[in-house]
Amino acid sequence: MHAYRTHNCGALRASDAGKTVRLSGWVHRKRDHGGLLFVDLRDRFGLTQCVFPSGSVVFDAAEAVRPESVITVTGEVVLREAGTINDKLPTGEVEIRVHEMAVQSAAEVLPIQVAGDQDFPEELRLKYRFLDLRREKQKRNILLRAGVIASIRRRMIEQGFTEFQTPILTASSPEGARDFLVPSRNHPGTFYALPQAPQQFKQLAMVAGFDRYFQIAPCFRDEASRADRSPGEFYQLDFEMSFVTQEDVFAAIEPVIAGVFEEFAGERKVYGAPFPRIAYDEAMLVYGSDKPDLRNPLRITDVTEHFAGSGFGLFAKIAASGGIVRAVPAPGAADKPRGFFDKLNDWARAEGAGGLGYIQFAADGPKGPIAKNLEADRVEAIRVACGLNAGDAVFFAAGKKDEAPKFSGKVRTRLGEELGLIAKDEFRFCWIVDFPMYELNEDTKQIDFSHNPFSMPQGGLEALNTMNPLDIKAFQYDIVCNGVELSSGAIRNHRPDIMIRAFEIAGYTAQDVEDRFGGMLNAFRYGAPPHGGSAPGIDRIVMLLADEPNIREVILFPLNQQGEDLMMQAPAPVPAARLKELHIKLDLPPAKGAAGPKTP
Amino acid sequence: MHAYRTHNCGALRASDAGKTVRLSGWVHRKRDHGGLLFVDLRDRFGLTQCVFPSGSVVFDAAEAVRPESVITVTGEVVLREAGTINDKLPTGEVEIRVHEMAVQSAAEVLPIQVAGDQDFPEELRLKYRFLDLRREKQKRNILLRAGVIASIRRRMIEQGFTEFQTPILTASSPEGARDFLVPSRNHPGTFYALPQAPQQFKQLAMVAGFDRYFQIAPCFRDEASRADRSPGEFYQLDFEMSFVTQEDVFAAIEPVIAGVFEEFAGERKVYGAPFPRIAYDEAMLVYGSDKPDLRNPLRITDVTEHFAGSGFGLFAKIAASGGIVRAVPAPGAADKPRGFFDKLNDWARAEGAGGLGYIQFAADGPKGPIAKNLEADRVEAIRVACGLNAGDAVFFAAGKKDEAPKFSGKVRTRLGEELGLIAKDEFRFCWIVDFPMYELNEDTKQIDFSHNPFSMPQGGLEALNTMNPLDIKAFQYDIVCNGVELSSGAIRNHRPDIMIRAFEIAGYTAQDVEDRFGGMLNAFRYGAPPHGGSAPGIDRIVMLLADEPNIREVILFPLNQQGEDLMMQAPAPVPAARLKELHIKLDLPPAKGAAGPKTP
Repeated sequence: MHAYRTHNCGALRASDAGKTVRLSGWVHRKRDHGGLLFVDLRDRFGLTQCVFPSGSVVFDAAEAVRPESVITVTGEVVLREAGTINDKLPTGEVEIRVHEMAVQSAAEVLPIQVAGDQDFPEELRLKYRFLDLRREKQKRNILLRAGVIASIRRRMIEQGFTEFQTPILTASSPEGARDFLVPSRNHPGTFYALPQAPQQFKQLAMVAGFDRYFQIAPCFRDEASRADRSPGEFYQLDFEMSFVTQEDVFAAIEPVIAGVFEEFAGERKVYGAPFPRIAYDEAMLVYGSDKPDLRNPLRITDVTEHFAGSGFGLFAKIAASGGIVRAVPAPGAADKPRGFFDKLNDWARAEGAGGLGYIQFAADGPKGPIAKNLEADRVEAIRVACGLNAGDAVFFAAGKKDEAPKFSGKVRTRLGEELGLIAKDEFRFCWIVDFPMYELNEDTKQIDFSHNPFSMPQGGLEALNTMNPLDIKAFQYDIVCNGVELSSGAIRNHRPDIMIRAFEIAGYTAQDVEDRFGGMLNAFRYGAPPHGGSAPGIDRIVMLLADEPNIREVILFPLNQQGEDLMMQAPAPVPAARLKELHIKLDLPPAKGAAGPKTP
Repeated sequence: MHAYRTHNCGALRASDAGKTVRLSGWVHRKRDHGGLLFVDLRDRFGLTQCVFPSGSVVFDAAEAVRPESVITVTGEVVLREAGTINDKLPTGEVEIRVHEMAVQSAAEVLPIQVAGDQDFPEELRLKYRFLDLRREKQKRNILLRAGVIASIRRRMIEQGFTEFQTPILTASSPEGARDFLVPSRNHPGTFYALPQAPQQFKQLAMVAGFDRYFQIAPCFRDEASRADRSPGEFYQLDFEMSFVTQEDVFAAIEPVIAGVFEEFAGERKVYGAPFPRIAYDEAMLVYGSDKPDLRNPLRITDVTEHFAGSGFGLFAKIAASGGIVRAVPAPGAADKPRGFFDKLNDWARAEGAGGLGYIQFAADGPKGPIAKNLEADRVEAIRVACGLNAGDAVFFAAGKKDEAPKFSGKVRTRLGEELGLIAKDEFRFCWIVDFPMYELNEDTKQIDFSHNPFSMPQGGLEALNTMNPLDIKAFQYDIVCNGVELSSGAIRNHRPDIMIRAFEIAGYTAQDVEDRFGGMLNAFRYGAPPHGGSAPGIDRIVMLLADEPNIREVILFPLNQQGEDLMMQAPAPVPAARLKELHIKLDLPPAKGAAGPKTP
């Protein structure tokens, strides 16, 4: 008989009755039913009930071990009596009558419980992550993550992609965030950087001719943590393709993303490929966001014209000064109590808006403060423009051209939630396309890159040379799911001449470009294919599928929000001799009480 | 028609004749055959011959571009004339009569050639790695690597393993090599370390209950580079299993390793599972190495007894002083010319040995300097012990107990090569098992751990408490292939009591163990399963399959031997402000001419 197990804890069935088996696992729960001790033995695969008859050696042994101890039991599989069958457990028809037991590892008193679903503070959970991970939800999240990644890999390979590993000890990249640095021992005074993304390497792989690259790539950014961003490392499905247009990229990745979601969505509905394409300008108008949540049926309408020169002075003034007014419908909200409108108005003020105007299209005619002042034909025109009926209401986001659309998006989301319109059990994707290449920096009045300076401008060199930069769009695209940006991608600018011109418009000299991106530019001078790609965030995909708003819930051993590993004690002080080897010394901020480093 | 290609450059066949197609790729070779210009257009998938008729616009355009420019051609697929069919090319029956051509990217004069197999200095190749990788051999190596890793993943999943990602920003690990350090911005004076291996995390994953973990894991060691070791990062197939014995680990991983080799060995013969198990002591005796190359049929014999008290004074003295004499057979070498023996003797001296004694069993009797002095019955006893016949010779490695075995192994390898006995077209694996837990440090006369202090000693606590430490074996095992160590693994010591006792024997107090490995030890106190695993080196597996002795040939973008990325310019100086943010400053060695860092 095997030293530890003939079966795992999820394997035994009624048909195994009579067999002598050996199981190993963790003592999940113990119940003393006078004369019999019941132990639920747990491993990754399931739970099996083990029975220890009183008066036996094994009874005493089982009684002595604490929950979460690891034991090996040997015994006979017996059918449970009819009344004690547990339908919820795959092994629930049987139990093990134990006649031999060995303690593999005795557990001390637990800092957090594994059985049950009691909540514990996150810091405690992270310090004892090896216990936390034994809990059902945590285990399920991590296995989901593993399943998602394996599925992505399989699907990418099916799509003709090949996985390559790009360097982790590398040079600073021009991604814009802060790099983590690694001092070089052999080259005094110099540092490696950890990659913020393998962006340059994947483009070099295209220049090298590999055609379709992907990688489940670890990326590193020394940035503050957020709920959806780890403070240190994160993973992305990094991919890149050669000789492709934007539509080719979409066609390659849509079945992968949709397939993964379909595989793991369970009962939830996935709106599969092709994903709707929404131009950036349209997204900002209709959804008030470049990350629209399509589960929310509300659509925004521009109603500036209806307020221009109208009797509602506040909005008329906004329209006259170049501002805009956007209308967000609230179907069926006409008869909501006053409190509903007041609460939304308060919320709008907290968001920094002046307030939240509205019209109620009650059965007996339009109502509310705006309807009182606005001409009736204009009220009616708004109703028609927004496709509203009696019983509906409409809210208005008014303000400057660059502020009102975003606020209208917030109103849309808020109304969708208030009115219970967001279909929680759906995954709805879209592509946001045609991003502007440039934008006007309101502070400096200079032209800046809007998003990614390395994207190919639509229209190429000719567009750069002839068009108003603010009208130029880029071959750049985001995948958005349920209002969450999964990835940002682009057809890259692979032409040094176009790149230098593109940077020139944003105020950089050719020399600046050579100095900052010379490696890449140099590679493009020896035959570069047109190429493009994207990099959906793995953690975000898993968060969506796990329905977890906290990224740490989908990472095996996450850092805490302060970037600390509480279990392994990182980061930690380092002996001075080690620093000397690396040609660095500490340069600490003035001591603030206990904030200084401990001596190693 | 697609903007770039209707087919890739490896796709067209005779059956496509008559079609109008579009191809994109690199200008591999151009040949001007008076009136016609031939271009071999290349992409990842193959080569297609394109024909540009003279006097056409496309002729002039094609003539103008340099090799390695990226072009798109549109034209008609035509059958080649019988005499010009290229059997070696899958597309060799057809060519494209080009009527349209676009230059996607014009190449400058190349620093290294892509077509042909001219050799270039490694530094130049690494600086222009994106060109180097276009060459057939380099491309093949990298695709082999990708194939091997994908195959390993598939096979591990088939074996019931699940892939998890462990942290890269973590704490210093007790692996023994130097860590790379990453200064923390938010925690002044502290540092993360990059993992030398995910050893502790995979063990914690077992404590967390995940049962079968694997990861194609990036590992980092700040060590000098060697031919088979990168100066910075490398990848291993890290895996770990719970509730297993050593044989379970072997049974899980053998089909994966053997399967991968069988998949990619081509014509070469793979000796599959089960791999022979060879005890460490036996390996040192019979092969003179714990990394035996089983393709070499030579077996070593201990012949100390035959020299003890013999007439061959030198060896008799060695035997008398506790030394040993090992015999390495040289089948068929009796009649080799004197130069053969002299050359081996010179080699042995260069290796630090006194020389290399031998006996030739010539047809007319034993010959050579030793045979002259050694009693005839002893000569005969050696012949019998080594299983030799007339026509064979035997060489002797004599010396101290801890030196002679290793030298005998070198002699075995050298003779195998000299005599052409090593089967180059085979992959032969073995497990080396039963490593000693401890060894005597000859300098300090203290007892040290032999290999891995975290392995479970055979016999457990009882063995530690009752046996001579030098007689205790560990549940530790290496996979060796063709004389290359692919991995080192162990059944781990999961019991704090056994671990503290094991370290005590090696001179550490319980407090030392708590201080150094407290994180791990603490986890073992809350229910740890018996577990074990290993971590075969991915780079080494690919090196063996690619038959490349240089690890950089199997890495997409390798650092050079000095740990520099010549293409991306890493490591590099960093602005002082960045260091300030990280609470460090430079602490440079005294300037040595140009050795100091450049200013950023």
